[in-house]
Amino acid sequence: MQKIVDPSRETWKELLARPEQKDDELQAVCSEIFAEVRKNGDEALKKYTWFFDRVQIENCCVSEEEFAEAERMVPESLKEAIRRAGENIRGFHIRQQEACSKGPVWEGVEGVRCWQEVRPIDRVGLYVPGGTAPLFSTVLMLGIPAQIAGCGQVVLCTPPGKNGRVEPAILWTARYCGIFQVYKAGGIQAIAAMTFGTETIPGVDKIFGPGNQFVTAAKQFATTCRVAIDLPAGPSEVLVMADGLARPEFVAADLLSQAEHGRDSQVVLLTWAPEIVPAVEAELERQLALLPRREVALAALENSRCILVKDRETALEIANEYAPEHLILCTEEYHSLIPEIRNAGSVFLGNYAPESAGDYASGTNHTLPTHAYAKAYSGVGVASFTKCISFQEISREGLMHLAPVIEIMAENEQLVAHRNAVRIRREAIGK
Amino acid sequence: MQKIVDPSRETWKELLARPEQKDDELQAVCSEIFAEVRKNGDEALKKYTWFFDRVQIENCCVSEEEFAEAERMVPESLKEAIRRAGENIRGFHIRQQEACSKGPVWEGVEGVRCWQEVRPIDRVGLYVPGGTAPLFSTVLMLGIPAQIAGCGQVVLCTPPGKNGRVEPAILWTARYCGIFQVYKAGGIQAIAAMTFGTETIPGVDKIFGPGNQFVTAAKQFATTCRVAIDLPAGPSEVLVMADGLARPEFVAADLLSQAEHGRDSQVVLLTWAPEIVPAVEAELERQLALLPRREVALAALENSRCILVKDRETALEIANEYAPEHLILCTEEYHSLIPEIRNAGSVFLGNYAPESAGDYASGTNHTLPTHAYAKAYSGVGVASFTKCISFQEISREGLMHLAPVIEIMAENEQLVAHRNAVRIRREAIGK
Repeated sequence: MQKIVDPSRETWKELLARPEQKDDELQAVCSEIFAEVRKNGDEALKKYTWFFDRVQIENCCVSEEEFAEAERMVPESLKEAIRRAGENIRGFHIRQQEACSKGPVWEGVEGVRCWQEVRPIDRVGLYVPGGTAPLFSTVLMLGIPAQIAGCGQVVLCTPPGKNGRVEPAILWTARYCGIFQVYKAGGIQAIAAMTFGTETIPGVDKIFGPGNQFVTAAKQFATTCRVAIDLPAGPSEVLVMADGLARPEFVAADLLSQAEHGRDSQVVLLTWAPEIVPAVEAELERQLALLPRREVALAALENSRCILVKDRETALEIANEYAPEHLILCTEEYHSLIPEIRNAGSVFLGNYAPESAGDYASGTNHTLPTHAYAKAYSGVGVASFTKCISFQEISREGLMHLAPVIEIMAENEQLVAHRNAVRIRREAIGK
Repeated sequence: MQKIVDPSRETWKELLARPEQKDDELQAVCSEIFAEVRKNGDEALKKYTWFFDRVQIENCCVSEEEFAEAERMVPESLKEAIRRAGENIRGFHIRQQEACSKGPVWEGVEGVRCWQEVRPIDRVGLYVPGGTAPLFSTVLMLGIPAQIAGCGQVVLCTPPGKNGRVEPAILWTARYCGIFQVYKAGGIQAIAAMTFGTETIPGVDKIFGPGNQFVTAAKQFATTCRVAIDLPAGPSEVLVMADGLARPEFVAADLLSQAEHGRDSQVVLLTWAPEIVPAVEAELERQLALLPRREVALAALENSRCILVKDRETALEIANEYAPEHLILCTEEYHSLIPEIRNAGSVFLGNYAPESAGDYASGTNHTLPTHAYAKAYSGVGVASFTKCISFQEISREGLMHLAPVIEIMAENEQLVAHRNAVRIRREAIGK
């Protein structure tokens, strides 16, 4: 970790910058693959699955037998853990739905009744990465809010393993979330398939889910093809804000849990207590040595920073400027900090709230804005699977109240037909 | 208008498609202008304002004197209309804020407390088109929710007129909405300026507002530069669903009020009552002849459709498939239709709810998803100017409850450091 002491304000921007990702070349690759999937459908999908994943897929649709096999293969202890995490995630997310369902009718002017109603997005596509680790927790984090929102069609794409199969834990979790349409497709071609639809995979209105740089570029490209996406993604990150009472071994464990995600992950330790820094460093070294993914974690730590500031206020300013995906407040007194947190994806309070709790089981969502997007984006929730429609019901009397206002404004905007749509009604009422 | 009778389901997709917009070339122009604005700031802005708008701007910041002049120039009748519309918009939008403020604390597992808090987006940029009509109503529709959300910095860019000035009604409305930072900048260069910031114009976290194809392309480009946008925009559109009791002169007036927006606007009349079609056509012709913008409206009508279907159910299916920005239900009995509306931006109920009411004064927002984006996007509201942060506060006891779940899941995802972050705490508690 790079150590920075009391950085001057002019250097913050550079200090807190994430590594730039160049994706101009990737956009050209996306353009080509999207065009081919649009044109040739399943045939193109098959071709690219062979080209990129070296797997021959005859039918990319996961069969009933494969689901049944997953049911047999996933150990009961894991099923029970997934169910318990699922209950917490469901419990927390159901309350989001209550918060955003049908709004009250507002009648500010007599006879003019306005309100909003929430509707599920009809067709959603979930992408779940394959590769070295089977991220069944992501199935929970996307599948449960989709189910609560009431989306009509939920499609899940995930790349097949070398054996041409999908990880059993992913299949089992999909079923647990009520998802029956699972397809063996990964990377750019999977995103293209959900964008346009193929003979087998249905096209969708919005695509969700994390992925590597190819998937990220493909999702960005999909937005130019009239499909919505959950979030622009980037490498995962954590900022731990610690005071002198933080436990160095916990801080080190949290930094490492983020660092093991990938070489491009970024972890930041931010503190006004210089005395904890050597202790955290020693713990990092000790714990790192025991990790199976230590090479990945070590590479991530090399991109990472330990920032020592003079006080709590400066730390808060830096944390808000960094806008971390995960913010851990390892401080004795954190309640007074909460109102000061302006930009973060998910916040973990105190010494006993590791990021892993939110990654799996506390109930909050783990699909969160990275790369300082927390300045403008929320994490995924039930609202991500819905949209709001406004309604207005206007009586004759109501329109007569509004008419003079609308007519003056429309005339001043030189939109005479807008004015006429009111005037013709006003005249009819007057008769 | 093109007339289509009882179209077969296979033709719907093509029938309801919007004209494709090619913006590959525009993206290249954006790339160049963004790069120059990023590098040369105000100097580049000045250059492009001269190049595109043929206006020499020394200082693009609107001065106190110009605001004072606007105060003098805007007639009291217009000010009063804007104030009355503003009160309705504020009244409706304040209720959105109540609906999405701090969520309840959920403690599904003892000692694990999760909740969400809403925060304003710190820095937002509003774009208000100039050109032939001064769209001060857009200032209300963006400025009021930004104010309710509590955004720290609200910046407004709008192109200067040939006289180097901003329309007085736009300035007056900006002030009315508490916006003091107004800049004379339009087109791609204005979006680039708000993306990166210049010596004069501050950079922002999210950009809002309608615009022509250049502005739309620039906003899309801005999303690749880590800035959020409100909505992907397209030409405005309305679908009027009418039964035999609809008043043809009202229907025609509504179709024309949309058609006058631009040559690329699209209007659709959808009905299961063949008898009203000739009457609407006759009214269209009669009313069109009286419009100052009749050439624009006529061009838009040529792209537009009258679809005759066999029953109400088919009409609903087509309306949901089209997912119109504005949906007017000119039907006798509309209450039973409401639950069937799945995809629309804003819905107008009955014979006395013209689209103009929502465009200006009923209280609902007029910044809405076009081009079938209503399938996945909501219109602009207070929530568009905020984001949600999740919080979790976990006690020792709470972590002990979650620990076995997290550890099993992390191990199965092969993320050992994630497991360790829990295990190290569990062991410390156990001691």
